[in-house]
Amino acid sequence: MSNKKNIAILGSTGSVGTQTLEVIGGNTDLFNVFLITANSNAFLLIKQALEFLPQYAIICDQSKYNEVKDALANTAVKVLAGIEAINEVVTHPDIDIVLTAMVGFAGLEPTIAAIKAGKDIALANKETLVVAGELITALAKKHQVKILPVDSEHSAIFQCLAGEEDNAIEKIILTASGGPFRGKYISFLENVTREDALKHPNWVMGAKITIDSASLMNKGLEVIEAKWLFDLQADQIDVIVHPQSIIHSMVQFQDGSLKAQMGLPDMKLPIQYALSYPGRIKNNFKRFDFINYPELTFEKPDLETFRNLGLAFEALKQGGNMPCIINAANEVAVAGFLNKSIGFLAMSDIIEQCMQQIQYEASPVLDDYLNTDKETRIFAQNLIKKMPLKALQF
Amino acid sequence: MSNKKNIAILGSTGSVGTQTLEVIGGNTDLFNVFLITANSNAFLLIKQALEFLPQYAIICDQSKYNEVKDALANTAVKVLAGIEAINEVVTHPDIDIVLTAMVGFAGLEPTIAAIKAGKDIALANKETLVVAGELITALAKKHQVKILPVDSEHSAIFQCLAGEEDNAIEKIILTASGGPFRGKYISFLENVTREDALKHPNWVMGAKITIDSASLMNKGLEVIEAKWLFDLQADQIDVIVHPQSIIHSMVQFQDGSLKAQMGLPDMKLPIQYALSYPGRIKNNFKRFDFINYPELTFEKPDLETFRNLGLAFEALKQGGNMPCIINAANEVAVAGFLNKSIGFLAMSDIIEQCMQQIQYEASPVLDDYLNTDKETRIFAQNLIKKMPLKALQF
Repeated sequence: MSNKKNIAILGSTGSVGTQTLEVIGGNTDLFNVFLITANSNAFLLIKQALEFLPQYAIICDQSKYNEVKDALANTAVKVLAGIEAINEVVTHPDIDIVLTAMVGFAGLEPTIAAIKAGKDIALANKETLVVAGELITALAKKHQVKILPVDSEHSAIFQCLAGEEDNAIEKIILTASGGPFRGKYISFLENVTREDALKHPNWVMGAKITIDSASLMNKGLEVIEAKWLFDLQADQIDVIVHPQSIIHSMVQFQDGSLKAQMGLPDMKLPIQYALSYPGRIKNNFKRFDFINYPELTFEKPDLETFRNLGLAFEALKQGGNMPCIINAANEVAVAGFLNKSIGFLAMSDIIEQCMQQIQYEASPVLDDYLNTDKETRIFAQNLIKKMPLKALQF
Repeated sequence: MSNKKNIAILGSTGSVGTQTLEVIGGNTDLFNVFLITANSNAFLLIKQALEFLPQYAIICDQSKYNEVKDALANTAVKVLAGIEAINEVVTHPDIDIVLTAMVGFAGLEPTIAAIKAGKDIALANKETLVVAGELITALAKKHQVKILPVDSEHSAIFQCLAGEEDNAIEKIILTASGGPFRGKYISFLENVTREDALKHPNWVMGAKITIDSASLMNKGLEVIEAKWLFDLQADQIDVIVHPQSIIHSMVQFQDGSLKAQMGLPDMKLPIQYALSYPGRIKNNFKRFDFINYPELTFEKPDLETFRNLGLAFEALKQGGNMPCIINAANEVAVAGFLNKSIGFLAMSDIIEQCMQQIQYEASPVLDDYLNTDKETRIFAQNLIKKMPLKALQF
């Protein structure tokens, strides 16, 4: 067991978390599950703990502690509860890689704790870099920690950069599926439902990221994430809509040569690459075949209809706490849309109003991010309460 | 000048040769032209020598020696003639890279001489590896010489392999434009002319390789070249027709991840990469833009109509001197087609008959290759003489 990498999975019951366990389950000679955490899904956390017998299982929701504790009483798994327990256990000296797959802003603090403890980060929680990219990348540099992207687009770019460390990037091109509403107009989007938005054409993902894909905010967040991961300026990041999701993203070097990483849409591949980097593990994942994809198509994103992508670029250019503002506003707006408090188009309105109204900070420190996040959420929630009834009528 | 790489260009007056001089002309701070050679185009060789003032200029055709000598009398350029002079000068201690852009079998001997002298090879002459891949790769290994591919497809794969040295290749996918006769049937090909075949849709190249592109023999030769460059088995090499020629080729690793190198069809990029490897030089070559390529399409090659590709795979599987046989037969057949002695479809007949009739050698040495080449050419030329007049009637 000494040669195995010990993996901590923050958010093991979500879509990326469960697929990470699938990858590890297929490579138990290489990886050991050291820690799993869940927000509130005690049932699945227990099931995973019984299967993988990690050193630790942590449930954020304190009210479910006894349920988890009792279910694992006959195992050696140590059960803890609450976010503070996560922040502490991620620093355990036996952990090699911390995979961060928690949803939203909640990923920030445990990621910081893990980096300070010198752990390599397999980053699936893009909000961490969106909110506090400057802080996180500086910290990673200071502690000589690798940030290994798990998002398929950023993994694609990371793969294309292998062996090119000394070659300047001219630009990157992030591909976007366009989501379920590609090609639709404002008039159509006014009346779309939660169920419509949750039908992603290519990727099976959690609810929050699926809504973000439908609104193109997911691509906006990825643009900001890419800026920090690959040290780019906003004008070095292009987005192209590629409905088949086969080319996962591209890098153009200073000689004009483009490199792309391709494959079927399957999160297990970027997850596995983050864990095995710089090696690649033989597997039997389904292979891509051009027979099934005789045409790969590309089109410009429609920034007038899908305003979130433009807002994200704007936030990136403004910098400071602005990406933190759009992230918090978006989390509240998506939750509002998912619980049917607001319509699809209102999400962009909420984000835009938060960008205009929340106090701008040019050089925020961690406390500023926490305050901005809190303040924006309250402001956005009040906006939702004041929304006209029309939004509720579908 | 001491930090500049000294480049020898074998075949400087051809398509790759002239583009190599363009690349060097744009980077005179990095590269110096040390040697240029031409088969018989004295006029262009003189022009190039006057512009780049190499240490040596060699004309193969001895009858043109005086013409070149006189024209360069007022320069410091040393003028020589004949293939033996090339074989000698490529070993000059000041040369760093030998770019081999001679046409056909003629590239073999000077390439061997350069490798034995420890020169890195920028390989544009694919016939060298097709004919004698085993010998050349063993020799390169022995003399610790790098073979840097210049063919756009192999450069693409070479670029995709950067940083992946320890990761097993599952397969490679060579892209083919399909040439000017893509989608055509036998009945159409019976009557095509030299002029039809020389109209390549994407690439501007020499006559021999353009005909090879029209018959898919070029892709067949590339399959064999790839086998040796990347140490693959025949069943690890796929060919896909991609009419836009934007994806230049792909590698699939053992985890199923595909990497592709892309860009506009422009030989200057792979030439520059071979000279600058592992670095990349900033340039102002025209950039690829998806706006102009909203669809990239892919289809299986039609092996029944374009038999040469299947014959090349067959030769690769048989090994020994069989690739040497198809290469020699093809050179004679293409020359016959270009001088209107035979029709387009007869080229495959000639190659197939040579494969059946010429003595097979399982483990050839250099002399065997030279003999096989000679014998095959004589046999193929006799076949052309005996061809029915029908082939001459267009």
